[in-house]
Amino acid sequence: MVRILGIDPGLRFTGWGVIDAQGNRLSYVASGILATDSKTAVPERLCVLADGLEKLIEQYAPDEAAVEETYVNQNGTATLKLGYARGVALLIPAKASLSVLEYGAKTVKRAVVGTGAATKDQVTMMVKRILPSAIIQKADAADALAIAICHAHHRTSQNTIALGKVMA
Amino acid sequence: MVRILGIDPGLRFTGWGVIDAQGNRLSYVASGILATDSKTAVPERLCVLADGLEKLIEQYAPDEAAVEETYVNQNGTATLKLGYARGVALLIPAKASLSVLEYGAKTVKRAVVGTGAATKDQVTMMVKRILPSAIIQKADAADALAIAICHAHHRTSQNTIALGKVMA
Repeated sequence: MVRILGIDPGLRFTGWGVIDAQGNRLSYVASGILATDSKTAVPERLCVLADGLEKLIEQYAPDEAAVEETYVNQNGTATLKLGYARGVALLIPAKASLSVLEYGAKTVKRAVVGTGAATKDQVTMMVKRILPSAIIQKADAADALAIAICHAHHRTSQNTIALGKVMA
Repeated sequence: MVRILGIDPGLRFTGWGVIDAQGNRLSYVASGILATDSKTAVPERLCVLADGLEKLIEQYAPDEAAVEETYVNQNGTATLKLGYARGVALLIPAKASLSVLEYGAKTVKRAVVGTGAATKDQVTMMVKRILPSAIIQKADAADALAIAICHAHHRTSQNTIALGKVMA
């Protein structure tokens, strides 16, 4: 069994979701949101995010982490702020010696809904179907669970390929 | 006396410089570059950067940190990568309970050279003039020292203003 922490990073809201994967069987562990106060200074907000992620890793002891590749939009300042949050989301699990994989938004949608063009609502709906016991308060948490599901699929198919190579 | 750590963040090279400020008197303590291997994964590179900054803070025990505001260019992916490095450069001193201030590139140039349109060479030259004992191996280290100098000027003028208010 492997425990996966999915992270959908953002400076204002970072979604997180923890699942257990045993082969193709996935089960829900926990999910939620880390929020930072937009009125406080950026370094402080990054500390809140880092502390939150450190506590989650301590509490749930995941084996691997998966982080969504942030959408790069035209607004340089917004991209930079997303970059800060994402930098922290990549750093903290790596510092805790977890392997950290990155998945693009389209790859995540394809893994969960079957199409890279899926809407946010479709992702949330499919996450609830795949993880019936999931308690989802916010779409960001559903996205984080979707990233964890994507990683679970990806690592299983990688293992199958690796096994295929060994067996060939 | 206050000890200032200046940081010029970048994923490939992060310049750093430490100075002591006693009123208007500035003195050089140390400077250098933290480099990460572009062939390794981003989370690993961010760990190298974070570990390097943590060690510098432990070794030199600065009181305050100043970080250059990254230039936002047209290339979204480059901006995002700069964002990762800058997120870590803002996080690590804040985690160590240092106050972390941010200064735009133009503000730094104006503080050191006298004009926001100064070239990199002019900045390096003026840093050497202000800190004669500085040993500068690379322009990124000179930039980091320039950020520290800028913060030293800024905090002194802020103190003067605060004092002026008290005296009025």
